[in-house]
Amino acid sequence: MPRLAVPLAARHGLGHIMPMSSESSPRGPIARMIPEGDDRQRLVCTDCGFINYENPKIVVGSVAAWEDRILLCRRAIEPSRGLWTLPAGYMELNETTAEGAKREAWEEARARIEIDCLLAVYEIPRISQVQLIYRARLRSPDVEPGPESLEVGLFRWDEIPWDSIAFPTVHWALDEYDKRRREHEFSPATNPEPEPPPPVGL
Amino acid sequence: MPRLAVPLAARHGLGHIMPMSSESSPRGPIARMIPEGDDRQRLVCTDCGFINYENPKIVVGSVAAWEDRILLCRRAIEPSRGLWTLPAGYMELNETTAEGAKREAWEEARARIEIDCLLAVYEIPRISQVQLIYRARLRSPDVEPGPESLEVGLFRWDEIPWDSIAFPTVHWALDEYDKRRREHEFSPATNPEPEPPPPVGL
Repeated sequence: MPRLAVPLAARHGLGHIMPMSSESSPRGPIARMIPEGDDRQRLVCTDCGFINYENPKIVVGSVAAWEDRILLCRRAIEPSRGLWTLPAGYMELNETTAEGAKREAWEEARARIEIDCLLAVYEIPRISQVQLIYRARLRSPDVEPGPESLEVGLFRWDEIPWDSIAFPTVHWALDEYDKRRREHEFSPATNPEPEPPPPVGL
Repeated sequence: MPRLAVPLAARHGLGHIMPMSSESSPRGPIARMIPEGDDRQRLVCTDCGFINYENPKIVVGSVAAWEDRILLCRRAIEPSRGLWTLPAGYMELNETTAEGAKREAWEEARARIEIDCLLAVYEIPRISQVQLIYRARLRSPDVEPGPESLEVGLFRWDEIPWDSIAFPTVHWALDEYDKRRREHEFSPATNPEPEPPPPVGL
């Protein structure tokens, strides 16, 4: 059975077709139609009838610092291969946004981070993306490139490669981090702590 | 061609299968396998080869007030049909989270709202859901039920039907709203204003 390697950059796109047999002509959900009971066009597969409800995607990441130095990763993948970014990526199922930000720091820079607070919520409606960027601390300065990074580094503010930043939101988040270095209470609420169980016997 | 009505509550679930012909036996992406180049199991359709990358979903909503009264909607759909909730729902493609919160207020309560600030980010990793709840003001007290609401109402704090609230996050958001009534600066950053265009001639 022929197999297509799935490019990392395509993993969270509109979908990817994996040939099922050399005879098949895989198409996937490519027909736009409004399902009965719905009020918007959706992508439907005319082979199997699957309706692909597309939803905005969440990117989770962090501005993570060791003392006065900020972790940046030079991208090994498109888009913006070769340029510098924050450790960030698509949120996976069954994790929290903070867990996702920690996972991305590990995957991209082998960095262990502690989340401080939610620094920014950025939106790119053109590509239906919402980014949640945390302020975080590195638990150690030991970092090294993961498979999606060419190199990683810890940069003092005036060492940041401002001319080689991968995305506008990276600029925004770095500026916001700098502006709010001395602020502590600026986050929206998050899940409250679960109620402690009642004492035994009550 | 037989057609299935798509229940509103299922519109943003894992997907829904629409029969393509009376002879077909639609299955959709139901086989769990790890695509080459990936590191996680994904749902693959063995008919057409489509890989359904599932991502967490974003719910957008608001605690929207007219003077000292808060807008609540009694749900006409499952889950929690008959119970009271905030105007909130799944974010759609190509909108911002604030636009989504406004749209939901209109769809569920025919309410026009103005967004004040991001009140809370709640997470339900068990069902891979992230909720962004805004603090908002109603532009008028004229509200009426949309198709997903049995009734809507504006409640003073001590009139809220606390015993008939649809979801824990509604409780949390109402409590947070009350706690922060007098605070103004507690939001993470959002997209900066676009740069103004340079004066003509420069």
